[in-house]
Amino acid sequence: MRYELYYWTGIQGRGEYVRLALEDAGADYIDVARERGDKVMTPFLRGTRDGALPFAPPFLKAGRLVIAQTPTILAYLGPHLGLVPGGQMAEIYAQQLQLTIADFVAEIHDTHHPIAVDLYYEQQRAAARKRSQAFREDRLPKFLGYFEQVLERGNGRQALTRHSYVDLSLFQLISGLDYAFPNAMRRMRKRIPRLRALAERIAERPNIAAYLASPRRIPFNQQGVFRHYAELDPAR
Amino acid sequence: MRYELYYWTGIQGRGEYVRLALEDAGADYIDVARERGDKVMTPFLRGTRDGALPFAPPFLKAGRLVIAQTPTILAYLGPHLGLVPGGQMAEIYAQQLQLTIADFVAEIHDTHHPIAVDLYYEQQRAAARKRSQAFREDRLPKFLGYFEQVLERGNGRQALTRHSYVDLSLFQLISGLDYAFPNAMRRMRKRIPRLRALAERIAERPNIAAYLASPRRIPFNQQGVFRHYAELDPAR
Repeated sequence: MRYELYYWTGIQGRGEYVRLALEDAGADYIDVARERGDKVMTPFLRGTRDGALPFAPPFLKAGRLVIAQTPTILAYLGPHLGLVPGGQMAEIYAQQLQLTIADFVAEIHDTHHPIAVDLYYEQQRAAARKRSQAFREDRLPKFLGYFEQVLERGNGRQALTRHSYVDLSLFQLISGLDYAFPNAMRRMRKRIPRLRALAERIAERPNIAAYLASPRRIPFNQQGVFRHYAELDPAR
Repeated sequence: MRYELYYWTGIQGRGEYVRLALEDAGADYIDVARERGDKVMTPFLRGTRDGALPFAPPFLKAGRLVIAQTPTILAYLGPHLGLVPGGQMAEIYAQQLQLTIADFVAEIHDTHHPIAVDLYYEQQRAAARKRSQAFREDRLPKFLGYFEQVLERGNGRQALTRHSYVDLSLFQLISGLDYAFPNAMRRMRKRIPRLRALAERIAERPNIAAYLASPRRIPFNQQGVFRHYAELDPAR
């Protein structure tokens, strides 16, 4: 099956979690908007195409099936791409973890857009500074501490004992946070040895290493979810 | 099977979407913290209990299985409770819609907590006023318009042509928004006839009507996700 991925060109964004899964598995896929432009998504978003109505990109077309929402796309792809251990318990746990990653990503986004997605960063800088402080001091340690604990205790019934799309997403989280909050992440380093080891291991997987070195991997930039503003990540 | 639901006592919160599914289906369940206090959740959250580690309540215990994240709980319960149409397409679409509801709920929460969950509303009132304005003008119409369109176009392959947990969650959304933003919702009324009809239909389902009239349904209050602050919902 040739999968069709639809996502905004120019940013990694939420599409990147799907892209990493497709790349790691060596799946046959087209990154449709990158080939034909963002407008190719409009009929799906307006509801003039058959199938499920997406609220927003990313969405995946797999045969007749249209699937939106990153975790739902990954829940579908996981078994097809060998990116989730077998069994209901593992699939459910992987999904639960992916949803927690999605919650974390939304909070990361809101560090630079705490007031409105439709306003520029410059229009909400004061609030962004306050939200980022709370993020660095409370939310970042809480979420990363949670995932570190998940890796630490993983037992025979857990999803993370074998390679899965969750691992790929955690790699993306760590990479993005290193870009956006290098100072805060440096201070966290000793508290997340398992997440650090996982991120290094994922980066060395042959298909991921090839992807990261390719032009298909857009660099982090100031339009995506992970943005670096020095004033939101002070050295001390 | 007797399900065990774990969620904070005193608020509807994110546990309510699960509670509505269990009540509608007449399932055998215990609302554990309401019977034994919030402390009963601590061992799960600390990771000293076996099974999946929840980031936060709600979580559900179903036999040996521990499941956290509201949409994941509903994805599991749906087929068991007859609350999702059969077939992969319908299950995936229901899940996609539930994740969009979860995104919406997170944005609703942040109207009164745009800076930090750990601060009081009173400590972030100025930002809350700005975020609520953007919410009322952009995000509320966008999300409700989306769900109205989903109901409008639902075709043979869609999940919402038959009763599902998504319908119950949409009822909860409308109920909560009516409480929190009565003025904004009054202005939206004519644009969401299908959502309005759905909410009325759900309220009249025998098990839901009985639940809403029971003491198990905690009233909306100023500690939950849906809060009414007059200054965040001006008459004009």
